[in-house]
Amino acid sequence: MAPRKEVFEGVEWRIRVAADGSLEALVPATGLARKAWLGIKGLISGFALKVTMFVKKAWDVETNDPRKVIHCIKVGLALAIVSLFYFMRPLYDGVGGNAMWTVMTVVVVFEPTVGATLYKCFNRVLGTFLAGFLALGVHWVASQSGERVEPFVVGASVFLLASAATFSRLIPSVKSRFDYGALIFILTFSFVAVSGYRVDKLFELAHHRISTIIIGSSLCILVIMLVCPIWSGQELHSLIVRNMDKLADSLDGCVTQYFNQSGEGTNSKEEATDNKLQGYKCVLSSKASEESMANFGRWEPSHGQFNFRHPWKQYLKIGASMRSCAYCMEALNSCIKSENQAAKLIKQHLGSGCLKVSSSSSNVIRELAETVKTMKKKSSTTELLAEEMKSAVQGLQNDLKTIPHLLNPSAIPGNKTLETACLEATTPTVTLMELVPVVTLASILIEISGRIEALVDAVEELAKLAEFGINDDKSKHSKMTDKTVSDAKQQTEGTMKALQRV
Amino acid sequence: MAPRKEVFEGVEWRIRVAADGSLEALVPATGLARKAWLGIKGLISGFALKVTMFVKKAWDVETNDPRKVIHCIKVGLALAIVSLFYFMRPLYDGVGGNAMWTVMTVVVVFEPTVGATLYKCFNRVLGTFLAGFLALGVHWVASQSGERVEPFVVGASVFLLASAATFSRLIPSVKSRFDYGALIFILTFSFVAVSGYRVDKLFELAHHRISTIIIGSSLCILVIMLVCPIWSGQELHSLIVRNMDKLADSLDGCVTQYFNQSGEGTNSKEEATDNKLQGYKCVLSSKASEESMANFGRWEPSHGQFNFRHPWKQYLKIGASMRSCAYCMEALNSCIKSENQAAKLIKQHLGSGCLKVSSSSSNVIRELAETVKTMKKKSSTTELLAEEMKSAVQGLQNDLKTIPHLLNPSAIPGNKTLETACLEATTPTVTLMELVPVVTLASILIEISGRIEALVDAVEELAKLAEFGINDDKSKHSKMTDKTVSDAKQQTEGTMKALQRV
Repeated sequence: MAPRKEVFEGVEWRIRVAADGSLEALVPATGLARKAWLGIKGLISGFALKVTMFVKKAWDVETNDPRKVIHCIKVGLALAIVSLFYFMRPLYDGVGGNAMWTVMTVVVVFEPTVGATLYKCFNRVLGTFLAGFLALGVHWVASQSGERVEPFVVGASVFLLASAATFSRLIPSVKSRFDYGALIFILTFSFVAVSGYRVDKLFELAHHRISTIIIGSSLCILVIMLVCPIWSGQELHSLIVRNMDKLADSLDGCVTQYFNQSGEGTNSKEEATDNKLQGYKCVLSSKASEESMANFGRWEPSHGQFNFRHPWKQYLKIGASMRSCAYCMEALNSCIKSENQAAKLIKQHLGSGCLKVSSSSSNVIRELAETVKTMKKKSSTTELLAEEMKSAVQGLQNDLKTIPHLLNPSAIPGNKTLETACLEATTPTVTLMELVPVVTLASILIEISGRIEALVDAVEELAKLAEFGINDDKSKHSKMTDKTVSDAKQQTEGTMKALQRV
Repeated sequence: MAPRKEVFEGVEWRIRVAADGSLEALVPATGLARKAWLGIKGLISGFALKVTMFVKKAWDVETNDPRKVIHCIKVGLALAIVSLFYFMRPLYDGVGGNAMWTVMTVVVVFEPTVGATLYKCFNRVLGTFLAGFLALGVHWVASQSGERVEPFVVGASVFLLASAATFSRLIPSVKSRFDYGALIFILTFSFVAVSGYRVDKLFELAHHRISTIIIGSSLCILVIMLVCPIWSGQELHSLIVRNMDKLADSLDGCVTQYFNQSGEGTNSKEEATDNKLQGYKCVLSSKASEESMANFGRWEPSHGQFNFRHPWKQYLKIGASMRSCAYCMEALNSCIKSENQAAKLIKQHLGSGCLKVSSSSSNVIRELAETVKTMKKKSSTTELLAEEMKSAVQGLQNDLKTIPHLLNPSAIPGNKTLETACLEATTPTVTLMELVPVVTLASILIEISGRIEALVDAVEELAKLAEFGINDDKSKHSKMTDKTVSDAKQQTEGTMKALQRV
C-alpha cells in the first residue's frame, strides 16, 4: 500500500507579506505533490468504489442463490479432508508421497453440480487409465530400441498421440462427452511416457497416479452427493418448468395489457408487472445453460423422480420449442409497442378474440408446465385445453373475417362510387392503417398458438419416453383445471367489460 | 477383442436319416451358440458403423476447417519441444526434476486461439504467483505455532481460502476474466501450503513450480503466435460480417421467394437457395460463441487491423442488434409458410412495396457488413441507403393505405347497402382473410427496418470507438454502391415483371 500522506484539504493559497505590510496573493499551490496526491486520492477512491461494487455483487450472488455459498463450503471441506493425506503419516506413505495428485484431483474435479463432477471424475479416471497403459507400452518399445533412438520414439509418439487426441476434442460428439477425458489422456500420456526416460520405477509412478486420482475422485463424489447435492437434471427440469410459466405469464400479460392500455390508472401496478411481461426473454437466452445441464444430467444416477437414463435430450427439444414461441413473442411485443396506433373500435372488435386466444394458449402452457413439474400425465385436460385454444383461434379468425364493414371506404381517394351517405351515418369508420397493428397482433397470436401445439407434442413425447404416471387424483385435478378455466374466463370477461367502458 | 469364431452362415437345418431311409427334418439350429454369434455380429457391425460414422465426422471437421488440423499439429509440436526438458540433462537439472510441470502447463494452457491461450497463461502465472506467496506466508505462521497446532492452522487456511476463491469464481465479472486464475490459485495454494508439512525445501518447490510454469507458458505463447495464429478477435470480426451477409441474404431471399412463389418452374434452384434463406438461424444461435470470442479477444495484442484495446464489446452489441432482427425474421418466415393463402391481387398490390423494403433493408445490412469488414466509414453511403430504406417503408405504408378498395364488401353478411353493381363490375374483389398474411408480412418488414436502424447506430458507435478510417477511394466505392443499388433495382423490376405475368 502507498503510505498516506497528511495533506491539507481544500485549495491552498499562499500569501506573501511584504516588508511594507502590503499583501500579495500568489497562485494556488498546484505543484507536483498536490497533483500526485489528487492522483492517489482518485486511485484510492476508485479502488474503494470497485471493492464496494464487488462486495455488493458478491452479496447479490449470496442472497440470490444461497446454494452457491454451500458449494464454496463444500469445496473447502473436500480440500481440508484431502489435506489429511499430508498430515497423517500412514496415508502419506500409502500413496508414496504423491498426495499432491489427490489435492489436484479434488481442485480440478469439484464442480457445482453432481453431473458435472461425475463427468469429470469418470473422464479423469478413464483418460488416466488409457493413457497410463499406452504410455507403459510405448516406454517398453522405446527402451527396447536402444538408448540413442529412445528419445525419438518417445517424442514421436507424444507428437502423434497428442495431435490425435486434440483432434478428437474438436469433433462435437466427442467434445460433449469426453472433452476433459481427452485432455487428461494427453496430460497423462506425455507425463508418463516422457518421465520413463528419467524415472526408474515407472510402473510405480503410473500406479500411484491412478490410485491417487481414484482416491480424489471418490472423495469428491462422496462430498458432492452427500452434502446438499445439486443435480444438473433436477436443475434442468426446474428451469424448463420455470421458463414455461414465464412464457405463459408474459404471453397473457402482454396481450391483456395491450387491450387494457386505455385505462391508464394502474401505472404503478403496470411497472411492477413489467418484469413479468419480459419473462419470455429468459427463454430466449437459456439455450446454452439448458444444453450444458442436459449434457451433465446424463451422467447422474437415479435421483428424486428421475431414473438413470431419463430422456434429458427431450428437454432440449422442449426448450427449442419454447424458444420458437418466444421468437414470435418478440415480434408480438414489438407490434404492441409499435407507433401506429390501432383504432379503439378495432381493438374492441378483436379484443375479445385475441384475449381468448392468449388466455387459452397460456392455459395450455401452464398445464404443460404442471404436467412436466408433477411428471403426471393428464392427457384429457391437456387435450381439452388444446381444443379450447383451437376453437379460440377459430373464433379469432371469424372475427377477422367480419372486420371489413368497419373500414371506411370514403378514405380512399378516387373511389367515389362507394361514398354512400347511409354508410357514413350507420357504421363507425376506421382506416386500414389503424387496422394493421391489431391484425398483425392477431395473426402472430395465431402463429404462436400453432407453435404451442408443437410444444404440446414435445411434452407428450417426453411423457412417453419418461413413462409419466397418470394423475388419478381426479377430484383435485378436475377442481384445479376448472379453477384455471374459470379464472381465465373471469379474466377475459373483466377485460371485455373494461373495453366496453372505453 | 473377442476371438472371431468361424460359424456357418445362413440358417442351419439338421436332417436325421433314419434306419429305414426316411428323412426327418429337424428345427433350425437356433441354439445358444448361434444367438451368441448373431449378437456378436450385431455388436461388430454396430461398432464398425460407429467407427465409420466417426471417421466421416472427423473427415468433415478436417475438410470444413483445415485450421483445426493445424491446431492439432501445433499441440503435438509444443509437447514434443517441451519433452526436450526430459531428454537433455542440463535442462532437466535446471528445473530440479520438476519438468513435469512444464508438460502439464503446455497441455492445459494450449487453446485453439491466441486470446484463449494468453488468457490461460496470464491467469496461470498470476494465480501461481499470488497463491505461492500466500502459501509461504501461511506456512511460516503455521511453523511458528508449534507442531501440534500446525496441521490445524494449515487446514483452516486451506478451507477458508479455497472457499473464498471458489466463491469469487461464481461472480460473473470475475468468472469472465479470472475463472482459470482462481482455479490455479486454489490448486497452488493447497499444494504448497499442505506440502510445507512434509517437504523441507518449500521455497525451492514454489520457485520451481513458478519457473516451470513460466517456461511452459512462454513456449505456448511462442508456438501459438508464430505458427499460423488464429486470433479470437479476427474470428469474431469475421463472424459478425458473415452473419450480417447471411441476414441480408435471407431477408432478401425470403421476401423475393414469397412474391415469386406462383412461378414454380425453378424448383431445383429454390432448393439450392433454401440454405441461404435459413441463414438468419446462424445469427440466432451464435450468441455464446460471440461472447466467448469477445472475452478472449481482449487479451490479444495488436494484430492485423486491430489494436490492443479494440472495442470487442461493441461487437456484442452489434450481435444483439442482429439477433433482434433475426427474431423478426423468424416471425416473417412463419408468416410466409402460413396456411392462409394470400390473394394474388393483394400480392401484386403490395409486392413491389415489400420487395423495395426488403431489398433496401438488405442493402443497408450489406453496406454495414462492408463497413465493418473494411473498417472504413462510408457514412454518406450508409445514410443514403438508410434514407432509401425509410422512403421504401413510407411507400409500403402508402400502399397499405390504398388497399381497402380491393376488399369485397359483398362478402360481409348484413352489409347490403354496399352491394353496388358497378363496384363488382369494375374492381376485382378480395376477402380480408386473404389479406391478413400479406399485411402481417408487410408490418413485420416495417418492424425489421426499424430494427435495422438500431443496427446502423450500433455499427456507427463501433466506427467511432474503433476510429474507422474514411474510405476515400471514391471512384471504386461509388461504383460499388451504384452496382449494389442497380442490382437491387433490377432484381425488384424482374420480380415485378414476374408478378405481372401471373
